[in-house]
Amino acid sequence: MQLPAPLSDCSPAQLQALLAELQRDYQAHCDANLALDLTRGKPSTEQLDLSDALDGLLAGDYRAADGSDCRNYGGLHGLAELRAVGAELLATTPAQTIAGGSSSLTLMYFTLLFANLFGLAGAPAWQSRGGVKIICPVPGYDRHFAICERLGIEMVTVAMNSDGPDMDAVEQLLASDPSIVGMWNVPKHSNPTGITYSDAVVKRIAKLGQLAQPGFLVLWDNAYAVHDIAASSDPLTAIAPLAEAAGTQVAQFASTSKITHAGAGVSFMAGSQALIDSVVEQLGIAMIGPDKVNQLRHVALLKEGGLAKIMDGHRALLAPRFAAVEQALAAHFSGSELLRWTRPNGGYFVSVDTLAGLASRVVALAAAAGVKLTPAGATFPYHRDPQDSNIRLAPSFPSLADVEKTMQVFCCCVQLASVEQQLANG
Amino acid sequence: MQLPAPLSDCSPAQLQALLAELQRDYQAHCDANLALDLTRGKPSTEQLDLSDALDGLLAGDYRAADGSDCRNYGGLHGLAELRAVGAELLATTPAQTIAGGSSSLTLMYFTLLFANLFGLAGAPAWQSRGGVKIICPVPGYDRHFAICERLGIEMVTVAMNSDGPDMDAVEQLLASDPSIVGMWNVPKHSNPTGITYSDAVVKRIAKLGQLAQPGFLVLWDNAYAVHDIAASSDPLTAIAPLAEAAGTQVAQFASTSKITHAGAGVSFMAGSQALIDSVVEQLGIAMIGPDKVNQLRHVALLKEGGLAKIMDGHRALLAPRFAAVEQALAAHFSGSELLRWTRPNGGYFVSVDTLAGLASRVVALAAAAGVKLTPAGATFPYHRDPQDSNIRLAPSFPSLADVEKTMQVFCCCVQLASVEQQLANG
Repeated sequence: MQLPAPLSDCSPAQLQALLAELQRDYQAHCDANLALDLTRGKPSTEQLDLSDALDGLLAGDYRAADGSDCRNYGGLHGLAELRAVGAELLATTPAQTIAGGSSSLTLMYFTLLFANLFGLAGAPAWQSRGGVKIICPVPGYDRHFAICERLGIEMVTVAMNSDGPDMDAVEQLLASDPSIVGMWNVPKHSNPTGITYSDAVVKRIAKLGQLAQPGFLVLWDNAYAVHDIAASSDPLTAIAPLAEAAGTQVAQFASTSKITHAGAGVSFMAGSQALIDSVVEQLGIAMIGPDKVNQLRHVALLKEGGLAKIMDGHRALLAPRFAAVEQALAAHFSGSELLRWTRPNGGYFVSVDTLAGLASRVVALAAAAGVKLTPAGATFPYHRDPQDSNIRLAPSFPSLADVEKTMQVFCCCVQLASVEQQLANG
Repeated sequence: MQLPAPLSDCSPAQLQALLAELQRDYQAHCDANLALDLTRGKPSTEQLDLSDALDGLLAGDYRAADGSDCRNYGGLHGLAELRAVGAELLATTPAQTIAGGSSSLTLMYFTLLFANLFGLAGAPAWQSRGGVKIICPVPGYDRHFAICERLGIEMVTVAMNSDGPDMDAVEQLLASDPSIVGMWNVPKHSNPTGITYSDAVVKRIAKLGQLAQPGFLVLWDNAYAVHDIAASSDPLTAIAPLAEAAGTQVAQFASTSKITHAGAGVSFMAGSQALIDSVVEQLGIAMIGPDKVNQLRHVALLKEGGLAKIMDGHRALLAPRFAAVEQALAAHFSGSELLRWTRPNGGYFVSVDTLAGLASRVVALAAAAGVKLTPAGATFPYHRDPQDSNIRLAPSFPSLADVEKTMQVFCCCVQLASVEQQLANG
């Protein structure tokens, strides 16, 4: 149901009646003993099934295209033929792309660690400059923020608009604060808002190195490079050639975690030759080489149209779930001031904003009714959402029926929290 | 051939005649255009074949014993059933063992990194104490040393005896130098000498925490836990219960790199509950979880006697290669002062000591004759062998015929360098 809009026009008696009705609905949800989870961007079982050919795909032939034995040690850069796959994902050259183990997050952690402790691409170590800061568009990805927090890198936020980060704010920060050493980005189907950076934004980011101190790194986590839900893809301008021309260091990342098997895929990193060379040199202290056998499996699965076929399969499974989220939100909040939300063309998330001060309450209400949501504040550095309004919805993992059920609970919780607040303020 | 012993009894004319003969032999080796490599402890192709059942072993069933889906994200500790395998390798409990990705070296790097930057098991960060040092028995493993060097941790050496490190020296160092924060160990079939620590040595190491500052870590790289070449195994006393009783923190490591596929195996770490908990908490910032699909494959391959059967296969392939090394060394240097060497019952290496000042010359002579040896000094911190005498021989990878050929060249180079030196000194 829709509540009367705006709520501030309702009399106290009307609000009390709404409250009573919503509390009845909410209690009914509680009584249903639900155990639903909309917290993380995990592929569903059916999505994982799409890549089940992986195990056994090699049919006993463990040789790479160059004849080398993938079972043995070595090859810090990863398999040449897989680097070509990564280069295509990241719109750059295989020579400037490396292929790693199952976690691109680990490559990001290492990159920030190496930049901080040792310096990359010939730049001085960040830590040698005293306190340093990284720009974080918000809302954003909690695991990016966790790495910075752990490494003692201060985070400063800028707004994420519908075409990307607020670039005026970014450029102003760089011009005024020499302690800024980097900027996080999820440029396509951003986590959590789902937006894709516009051509103009990518072009401005590619030039940031000219405003920054040496050692400045654009962190470009292209986790959803080919993860379209809508029939047509949001185009993303290739940053590598622009950055190269402008002398900006961009560290690109991607993985197959949301292409093949989430926990057993392969990862990629790309950047200038100097950046990649220095990262590989550092990695050589921490490992002998990535799992090339799994890399070979991935080449066999993804080559010759395999990737596109799998992504079609993901789209077919994800599109109805995202449609269910949109349908429920529209049914309850279309034209309402109580909730704003995004309508992504891809990725794994829908980002919603409640009225200020209500996100924590909504998450708590949902939890008590058996629906786990990402904790309020998780999409902001230090878990501090100054408005307490943003919540990330991740509908990929539950069944379609469960997404629908969850959304009914969620919408009820938002309405209930909103009426509670109106009553308290009134 | 054997040279007359001792060389110092030879007249200059005799030495010149020997030199001419050895130079002829050496030239013959050079003329053979060899391309042989005895540098790294890499399994041979035949050894890797022993585990070729891995790919396809799951037959489409990706569920762990607890019913969880190994394809999806999560599970920082690794699969329960694989942790049990690791616990057996490391003679400890599954609860205190975690299973990781393909590289135990990465777990070691992370452990030292975390201890240095953040502190582990409740201890203060090493770096908060200013300059710190780690004890390294020598000769030892170059990659252990490389991690310390990169992280700015000073290395102090103690001698590696036939029963383990010189424990008097170790205890003296700990008693006199409060900046010591750890000690490297390869306790079984040590790299490179092949010796296994005696019961008495293990017991003394397990008590080192009582002599040390809080934060002291025994690094126990049990890379060759089940890697016997001789028919009977060198027994290694289990350190975990002893260390637990004495309050010493021991970080144990192992992997299947030299059990299954060298570059595509699984790794293990074990320690006190506090140590493991703090490592897992830190790992959680850098990754979402290890590749559980590959872990599941490994459980399927290694369970129910699978491990023992594979190790029998390795032994059958390695024993003749090690015998060829021993045979060549005995034929050329038995009773001679020119070379001392180890006769390991397992592991991957034979450690030799030339006369002082000759290791670099031998390695250079061999290289010029097409035989790559581990660089002289590699078995010492900072690549500095104060005697310039230690060379690590790794006979696993080449064919038996190539090991035999390589050893002829090697022995010729040692004799040639020795005669050259005697002539120069005489």
